[in-house]
Amino acid sequence: MSRSIPADSVGVTEPYTLHFDHAINLSSGGALAEYDLIYECYGELNPQKNNAVLICHALSSDHHAAGFHGLNDTKPGWWDNMIGPGKPVDTNRLFVVSCNNLGGCSGSTGPSSINPTSGEPYGPDFPLVTVRDWVESQARLADALSVQQWLAVMGGSLGGMQALQWAIDYPDRLRHCIAIAAASKLTAQNIAFSEVARQAILTDPDFHGGRYYDHNTIPRRGLRIARMLGHITYLSDDAMAKKFGRQLREGKINFNYGVEFEVESYLRHQGDSFVERFDANTYLLITKVLDYFDPAEKTDGNLAAVLTGAVADFLIVSFTSDWRFASSRSREIVKALHENSLNVSYADVNSYQGHDSFLMPIPQYHNVVRAYLDQALRNAG
Amino acid sequence: MSRSIPADSVGVTEPYTLHFDHAINLSSGGALAEYDLIYECYGELNPQKNNAVLICHALSSDHHAAGFHGLNDTKPGWWDNMIGPGKPVDTNRLFVVSCNNLGGCSGSTGPSSINPTSGEPYGPDFPLVTVRDWVESQARLADALSVQQWLAVMGGSLGGMQALQWAIDYPDRLRHCIAIAAASKLTAQNIAFSEVARQAILTDPDFHGGRYYDHNTIPRRGLRIARMLGHITYLSDDAMAKKFGRQLREGKINFNYGVEFEVESYLRHQGDSFVERFDANTYLLITKVLDYFDPAEKTDGNLAAVLTGAVADFLIVSFTSDWRFASSRSREIVKALHENSLNVSYADVNSYQGHDSFLMPIPQYHNVVRAYLDQALRNAG
Repeated sequence: MSRSIPADSVGVTEPYTLHFDHAINLSSGGALAEYDLIYECYGELNPQKNNAVLICHALSSDHHAAGFHGLNDTKPGWWDNMIGPGKPVDTNRLFVVSCNNLGGCSGSTGPSSINPTSGEPYGPDFPLVTVRDWVESQARLADALSVQQWLAVMGGSLGGMQALQWAIDYPDRLRHCIAIAAASKLTAQNIAFSEVARQAILTDPDFHGGRYYDHNTIPRRGLRIARMLGHITYLSDDAMAKKFGRQLREGKINFNYGVEFEVESYLRHQGDSFVERFDANTYLLITKVLDYFDPAEKTDGNLAAVLTGAVADFLIVSFTSDWRFASSRSREIVKALHENSLNVSYADVNSYQGHDSFLMPIPQYHNVVRAYLDQALRNAG
Repeated sequence: MSRSIPADSVGVTEPYTLHFDHAINLSSGGALAEYDLIYECYGELNPQKNNAVLICHALSSDHHAAGFHGLNDTKPGWWDNMIGPGKPVDTNRLFVVSCNNLGGCSGSTGPSSINPTSGEPYGPDFPLVTVRDWVESQARLADALSVQQWLAVMGGSLGGMQALQWAIDYPDRLRHCIAIAAASKLTAQNIAFSEVARQAILTDPDFHGGRYYDHNTIPRRGLRIARMLGHITYLSDDAMAKKFGRQLREGKINFNYGVEFEVESYLRHQGDSFVERFDANTYLLITKVLDYFDPAEKTDGNLAAVLTGAVADFLIVSFTSDWRFASSRSREIVKALHENSLNVSYADVNSYQGHDSFLMPIPQYHNVVRAYLDQALRNAG
């Protein structure tokens, strides 16, 4: 049964895959001789080629940021409320590109892809990568799409970190950097959450040292725990209270280990559905990408110093209820940008939804992004 | 090699075990026909029997609150900085009792104890219990020790919840209730953390439906993950930053899944050592005790209403950096006590150590407890 696509949707979209056979050297010292990147495009690149926006995804998303993969598809892309005709990232005027990152499991080369050398999945042989490596691979994608300079590179959470890295590594290749609900590096507490998630996967007997593909199994238990834990950190205490409170599933306590509180049901469902769609080795890899991100490490922790070469204008957005990457973390970035006399817009958006706020259609937030991109388009001429 | 015991220590202590053969009916509808409680005592009960203090333990502690179990014992009881001669809970003047709760794994009857009916460990047949059940069993212990009325019942975290329940269930049997870093019920986020910990244990292939004793194994992986996760919630973001920051174990990133950051090493160590000393079924049970605690549930969420019968004086203590049971949660309790015109002292102690602050020798905190108990002793005559 087909359905009608909303008028403000980019509609039915199709992913493209580009094969790169020019080796990429990685931060780890390793290299990939060849790799694929899968991506989607929304809107049209204008003749001046100055209306392109790169969307960078966070931990577990992918290239499918907007629209539907078919008329029967019930769920749009992960940032569909942000991207579309007339939406804050307005595809009537912008050319939007969104790719699945290297190491992913949605079509770009990653641990579950076939290693051409062995003819088997890479598994644990897939090299660990960094935000820098991602940005380099995205720059190659830009080359292939004839985008010399992005009007904007934007993303939330880990996506915002990529936008920041773009401003550092390729200052001339973006006019605007939009980093939402991000941080310039993880705290010890952030790393601790990553580590518990990793240990749940690594110690799952079905992990088989990362070669579970060969055993026709997946480390389901570990990945499920990792995802359940992740969801706690994506929501605020307030959001959970509003959503679930202490509501009992069956109206009474049963004195057993089945689902008793609604929040338990929610977490189990999130965990169960995630294991069906996401690769455990990719999850491990991406938590490491997060932990390693620390551009100011090479300037002895001085974030302003590592940003001296940046020339983009910046929009930094944080959310009052985000305890994973709190507003104070965004203000550190704003401060470092100010120290370099860069143009910075900063909004601390009032929200109750926690870190997940960056995915929500919060009017103040969407208005800020819309106004910023309108201005960017006007200035682009 | 023996060592000298510090002068302000209660010294070498010995636990006692009391067997109760009068059945206890539990909140779940189940019952235990007989059970043991293990406990320790420090100081002397005075002839008036009005100097007794009951210490209630939190999630994973036990009856061994102070002193050493032998001259070669390097680690004192878990609240040794609080309890001893001249310490805030001054054993020169107070008679202090500390018991391992029912369902525990340190000597009181619990899931790892032998079920007299079957001759095998209870395992999953051990009934789930509640804070009310614990308080009832503690009241029976008080009877056995000839303590008709405690000068104070005190505890931190889940221990504070027991103190509150005492004030509700046995108002005439305590003069003072000291609830530290507690809350009147868990939030959805608190329950969510409990649930992820439980799922890690319950889905461990070595759990065997709780009958792992019969398989000569323990659900090591799951219990380890549960404990690692717990430790994140016991510390504040600040405490973790101070303790570990982003410090690398070997001074460099290795691009693998071994220990890279110091915080990873800490968590793995905490997890590994916990599985050697704690029973997984008890861990599951105690997380449920926490989740179920909600005395105001029977008064439709009105905490003041459930406290109308309370007559004790109260000391409520919270810590500014505690995000597990935030200061606001203690203020809810204070408000409900005030609505009943009860005598309440409240201190919100400045600390950076998070929930674990209640175990730390923070001068302001210790001074508050000391002054409160001094006053209590003076008023007791």
